[in-house]
Amino acid sequence: MQTVNACIITIGDELLIGQTIDTNSAWMAEELNKIGVWVKRKITVGDVWDDIWSALDEEAGKSEIVLITGGLGPTADDITKPLLCKYFGGKLVVNEQVLTHIKYLFEKIFQRSGPILERNLKQAEVPDNCTVLFNERGTAPGMLFNKEGKIFVSLPGVPHEMKGLMKKEVLPRLQKEFRLPFILHQTLVTYGMGESFIAEKIKDWEEKLPQHLKLAYLPHYGMVRLRLTAIGDDKSKLGKDLETQITGLKPLIDEWLVIDDDMTMQQVVAKLLKERKQTVGTAESCTGGYIAHLLTIDPGASSNFKGTVVAYDNKVKEDILEVRHETIESTGAVSEETVREMVQGVLNNLKTDFALATSGIMGPDGGTPDKPVGTVWIAVGNNKEIEAKKFQFRFDRMRNIEQTSNTALNMLRKFIENHDL
Amino acid sequence: MQTVNACIITIGDELLIGQTIDTNSAWMAEELNKIGVWVKRKITVGDVWDDIWSALDEEAGKSEIVLITGGLGPTADDITKPLLCKYFGGKLVVNEQVLTHIKYLFEKIFQRSGPILERNLKQAEVPDNCTVLFNERGTAPGMLFNKEGKIFVSLPGVPHEMKGLMKKEVLPRLQKEFRLPFILHQTLVTYGMGESFIAEKIKDWEEKLPQHLKLAYLPHYGMVRLRLTAIGDDKSKLGKDLETQITGLKPLIDEWLVIDDDMTMQQVVAKLLKERKQTVGTAESCTGGYIAHLLTIDPGASSNFKGTVVAYDNKVKEDILEVRHETIESTGAVSEETVREMVQGVLNNLKTDFALATSGIMGPDGGTPDKPVGTVWIAVGNNKEIEAKKFQFRFDRMRNIEQTSNTALNMLRKFIENHDL
Repeated sequence: MQTVNACIITIGDELLIGQTIDTNSAWMAEELNKIGVWVKRKITVGDVWDDIWSALDEEAGKSEIVLITGGLGPTADDITKPLLCKYFGGKLVVNEQVLTHIKYLFEKIFQRSGPILERNLKQAEVPDNCTVLFNERGTAPGMLFNKEGKIFVSLPGVPHEMKGLMKKEVLPRLQKEFRLPFILHQTLVTYGMGESFIAEKIKDWEEKLPQHLKLAYLPHYGMVRLRLTAIGDDKSKLGKDLETQITGLKPLIDEWLVIDDDMTMQQVVAKLLKERKQTVGTAESCTGGYIAHLLTIDPGASSNFKGTVVAYDNKVKEDILEVRHETIESTGAVSEETVREMVQGVLNNLKTDFALATSGIMGPDGGTPDKPVGTVWIAVGNNKEIEAKKFQFRFDRMRNIEQTSNTALNMLRKFIENHDL
Repeated sequence: MQTVNACIITIGDELLIGQTIDTNSAWMAEELNKIGVWVKRKITVGDVWDDIWSALDEEAGKSEIVLITGGLGPTADDITKPLLCKYFGGKLVVNEQVLTHIKYLFEKIFQRSGPILERNLKQAEVPDNCTVLFNERGTAPGMLFNKEGKIFVSLPGVPHEMKGLMKKEVLPRLQKEFRLPFILHQTLVTYGMGESFIAEKIKDWEEKLPQHLKLAYLPHYGMVRLRLTAIGDDKSKLGKDLETQITGLKPLIDEWLVIDDDMTMQQVVAKLLKERKQTVGTAESCTGGYIAHLLTIDPGASSNFKGTVVAYDNKVKEDILEVRHETIESTGAVSEETVREMVQGVLNNLKTDFALATSGIMGPDGGTPDKPVGTVWIAVGNNKEIEAKKFQFRFDRMRNIEQTSNTALNMLRKFIENHDL
């Protein structure tokens, strides 16, 4: 079976001057992969007639499916719809369902008083030769075109509108239109060892991988995810091939293996706590609430995460977490003693089973010869035992915040695993 | 003067299956814009020889500058360097400076014991016909090639390594190589009104904009940034043109204007607090520490942000923030009374000048007919006065967290502005 290829074209000057980071195409690619469509290329062009036009021409020559996002908003810098109309040789007509929906949104949901603007009403116009994809989440409809055996889909750039349309309209239609191969992924998450050392360790295994299986190394803030991808026709055979290879791989990287699933570190921690019906709280200085944020991104967090004290100011460490004034005076806020007392402060005051604390210097300023930028103390513990460890990170502030958070969550994970119920 | 165009090619299967979001190209585009290089296209291709090769061919036909990131790591899935070597007709030779640096990194910085791996040593190999761009932050050097009057630069995909090389090596070289036009941007940040209504309001002004000025609407979680771009030769004339137009625009959007600079909401709040030498603390339930994180992303936050209590569990609201048990019992955690008491709890216990509190239902579960998903109460205040307001957001969890955070920070901004020192 031949691979069905797709191209994702994202449109917008804001993407070309770097004012907006494109998150749409990553999400779309992931969803397309799940149904067996391979994204061969992604392209970004500006709000420029000729650039959009030639991107459509060129990408249709390379892929069976061309997905376009952006350029459908109500304001004057949008030229995509008239261009699509001309490109596919249609003319703009009012779609009554979309018009009714726009009126409903403005009156009932946005609760705007006064007449609806001309530019919003115009969003109900669509080329007469497209299949209209109804967008229940917004005013701009999706549009699907067929041309010379290729499928073109245009979607709004607002992420939750695009996602709704992909799930409800685009993916099911592509599954009907093409006979798709299966693409299966399995990911192993490791922590604490660089990609080249892992590669060296698993070299013999990797060299023997069958042709239809492909390995990728995905390093990310101290973690390296190993993603094994299998492409083929026979889903159950692919599943077995993956399983066989994963079984061979696991013992080789046992020391650094976090989990055999594509999960974030906080998801692994949340899963452990849920299974054990236990709770955690955090005391954060240098991470500034980022660990709390990670622990509450996923729904259902509230059953195992009780709360956090972000003690950015030393006085807050003393007043809320009961870190002793003498401790901070004598050893400084970035010290083993301070993070240990912060953990105890969480256990005492938030009454959790486990606690975690961070204190460090994230940069770019605030370093000293003794404690340069990137110095971090992390402690984890329960009411019986507290462990503390010093780390030396490097480079920029946001990276240090993320690396400290991941490292702290990994220490917590190990601590929980090593302490039976 | 002719515009100098660039293309950014990002390489990696992980970008095409959606496992990694490309943040590199946005940053690069922003930096290129600042020196007057216009990014015409961005392309992502996989770790596939033919796809990389044809991307180089095609993009060199469209732009004067081709920047490539990714595909230079030490593991086996990387094919970029041999390809570049062949494409530009060179052969791989060991670069002594890079080799010394790799040894230094492994011995002194990574503190690995044992011999350095062959695959890491190979990173010191570079095509003999490129200019080596020394990467002090990592093992993979950058490479610059000239071919038929076009400039090609290959950079590692690790963000902080790429950034270091861009700043130190690439941007200065491009400024020397090309006579660049000036591109000036000015951004006005608005909050609380949709892009189509703003567009309607400023229609007459927008229609009269001179040809060399371009307006873009950038909506983002309740904010709409209006970015005016001027392109030309005469920097001081462009500056004046921008100023004239911004002066005309401001009164039209006065009601929603946050600031006349490209700043985030938390940066505006931090600026206000710094000017007034005042402090803030937050009490977060539904935002789970995200506001604290926003307030600590930028360096120097510690002088005006004291801390946060993430009170995800109601017991933490009572124990640490002194929210009365009866309040939560009678009105629920998502209520005006609760967020008011949370604000008072921060003022009393963290001893800040201002406080902010959030409580709501972020979804997808946890909604009731009375309080559906997206219901949020926000309060801001000082020791004299507390204001509370209810909001109804929609859609997905992460979007609700971001929208609540931005809305809360905007309420805080207004509260601070309305309360003289």
